[in-house]
Amino acid sequence: MTTQPALPQGFRAAGIAAGIKKNGKADLTVIVSDVDCNAAAVFTTNKVKAAPVIRGMAQLKSAYARSMRAVVINAGCANACTGDQGLRNAEATAQLASTLLRLDAHDQVLVMSTGVIGVQLPMDKLQAGMPQAVAALSTSSLADISLAIMTTDTVPKVISHSYTTTEGKQFTIAGIAKGAGMIHPNMATMLSVVMTDAKVPLGALRQAVKKATNRSFNCISVDGDTSTNDTYLVLANGVSGTRPSVEEFEDALNEISTELAKKVARDGEGATKFITIRVTGARTWDMAHKVGRTIATSPLVKTAFYGEDANWGRITCAAGYSGEDVNPDHMSLWFGGVHVFSNGTPTDYLDEAATAAMKPIDVEVHLDLGLGEAECTVWTCDMSHEYVTINGKYRS
Amino acid sequence: MTTQPALPQGFRAAGIAAGIKKNGKADLTVIVSDVDCNAAAVFTTNKVKAAPVIRGMAQLKSAYARSMRAVVINAGCANACTGDQGLRNAEATAQLASTLLRLDAHDQVLVMSTGVIGVQLPMDKLQAGMPQAVAALSTSSLADISLAIMTTDTVPKVISHSYTTTEGKQFTIAGIAKGAGMIHPNMATMLSVVMTDAKVPLGALRQAVKKATNRSFNCISVDGDTSTNDTYLVLANGVSGTRPSVEEFEDALNEISTELAKKVARDGEGATKFITIRVTGARTWDMAHKVGRTIATSPLVKTAFYGEDANWGRITCAAGYSGEDVNPDHMSLWFGGVHVFSNGTPTDYLDEAATAAMKPIDVEVHLDLGLGEAECTVWTCDMSHEYVTINGKYRS
Repeated sequence: MTTQPALPQGFRAAGIAAGIKKNGKADLTVIVSDVDCNAAAVFTTNKVKAAPVIRGMAQLKSAYARSMRAVVINAGCANACTGDQGLRNAEATAQLASTLLRLDAHDQVLVMSTGVIGVQLPMDKLQAGMPQAVAALSTSSLADISLAIMTTDTVPKVISHSYTTTEGKQFTIAGIAKGAGMIHPNMATMLSVVMTDAKVPLGALRQAVKKATNRSFNCISVDGDTSTNDTYLVLANGVSGTRPSVEEFEDALNEISTELAKKVARDGEGATKFITIRVTGARTWDMAHKVGRTIATSPLVKTAFYGEDANWGRITCAAGYSGEDVNPDHMSLWFGGVHVFSNGTPTDYLDEAATAAMKPIDVEVHLDLGLGEAECTVWTCDMSHEYVTINGKYRS
Repeated sequence: MTTQPALPQGFRAAGIAAGIKKNGKADLTVIVSDVDCNAAAVFTTNKVKAAPVIRGMAQLKSAYARSMRAVVINAGCANACTGDQGLRNAEATAQLASTLLRLDAHDQVLVMSTGVIGVQLPMDKLQAGMPQAVAALSTSSLADISLAIMTTDTVPKVISHSYTTTEGKQFTIAGIAKGAGMIHPNMATMLSVVMTDAKVPLGALRQAVKKATNRSFNCISVDGDTSTNDTYLVLANGVSGTRPSVEEFEDALNEISTELAKKVARDGEGATKFITIRVTGARTWDMAHKVGRTIATSPLVKTAFYGEDANWGRITCAAGYSGEDVNPDHMSLWFGGVHVFSNGTPTDYLDEAATAAMKPIDVEVHLDLGLGEAECTVWTCDMSHEYVTINGKYRS
């Protein structure tokens, strides 16, 4: 596996400033494939779905999942809770791009949005910005578009890897993601687009996306809020000519998705720490996942990490209210390498050792449920004063 | 209904400092009834239950629910995640009190604890403090015990009312509650004890406690964390000789419980605002309750209130991921009296009006789901910098 900060073959992209964000930063992204892509996505499970989510779900359920060519992404406005006008604006956005790109808006252009909920898209700005974006399309813009999809993110999340199949053929997968708050994906993250030049049949692609989502984006949490706009989209254009085996592609997509998801958790709003929570000894993966996610979502756990307070009782408490049938008498818990809780009772650990384990930026927690063989690892960040500051004034 | 800051007839109590809290404040409470009480309680649904919860559940399931005489409450140590030693310490605490009070520890003395998880009870301090507490028992100590059960609470939660039945007879209900963090009760709050001198048969008492809990403590949330120690206990000693009707007693207990629950939400850790969320137009009370609780738990909603940012999209978003089958096209939302969202689209409200509605300390939100006739009101507080400060350093 080699790392190349490049788009896969046959993709061009651009990220420009169209004036949708108040701060004047890049906010409009266009991604285009030279040929039709197989496209698969997972969308938010929130019953309140943004207009582009409603539109995209319909498109990718249909035969057009085999003819996708372009994605338009705006940051700064979620186009959620915007009613019929919002749906018309999402369609109009696709039209603006399709006219310039000579594509069919409905059959070939996906739209994604992220930003404030309950505000209509500024169509005049999209109209003025779209020609600029299309004019700027290039094969060396992966870093640009990772910036243009950001909202409260402090760093872009971007990754590109080339893989070699057992037959010695190459393909590339590149991905971008955004998300720092309202992150508790349930079937998807805020926004992530992954592109590959591998040849992947639609059925295999859909299966791979579903599997990768469960083990990556569905294993992170920033604040427990499942967004209206969560979308994880994978486009496969086949331009490399390489057709990896199902397993090869799934492994590669898993790796890319997990790296992107971890980048999102690490850049959680106001985060000062990156926390890895490994839950072992569960009866099933679902049980381990549910317990891990509950711990990763608890404000009390997350503020304790911020304060570097080895208050481990909050972790066993969160496991207890996860809804899973856990038993404290079978539980054991480690902070870093420090064993603090063993089969229902505190160990005779040294307080200084436990506190020392909380000091690094990357903190590891291991909870063994003592019930079975299944395990799951989830990733989260701490909850800081800065989280409150960011979210008390998000719109201003 | 008249207000008297008094214990009901036949109850004595004391709250003293036994040195369990590091700050030297009152931390040991003893409540005694002159005669046997009918006792009913709801306990936490957390699978990780504190030792006194495990002990109390067994006691109140048995015939001893008709012979309870005393409750011992310590603050500063939760006696949770403490294994067999924790269970022995809870029993020993009851023994200390029962010896001094000439009662039977197992049949007549309940124990409750609140504080840090994962630390054993300091039995030497309880041994030294118990005689002081018993010596201090008096009928005028309701305010004292409301202080002695506090942890991160900033104000005591106490209430006492006398009621007159339709037959012209009087009875009194008095209650105390504590809780400011780890508050997301599911069948109970952190700790609340309500005493009454009414004559209430055990079956009716159990029913009334269950009903009152659902409409009061189960309608508040501070941080979404369901504690290991949640207990809501009601003792009825019958000393007034008054036997209210089932409806009279249920109404009275509902009123007392709701007032105590609202006091807990208002004093949420770091709270600067008290938020009332009324969900109407639901198909069932359960649906309204689930939607309301999800909104009340969202860190994004709660930080927006702290910042006085009328970012109402976070409320419709939270309703959408509540797990209930809601539809944004049927939803309407009001901040104070300002109608901001109507049947799926933003209204043409003035931003200044919505912002003005966020300014009072008491903020009211009304979400109509447009699906049915059921409704539920829940109460919560905002999430502030102070919440993070308190919980980053709780143990120190």
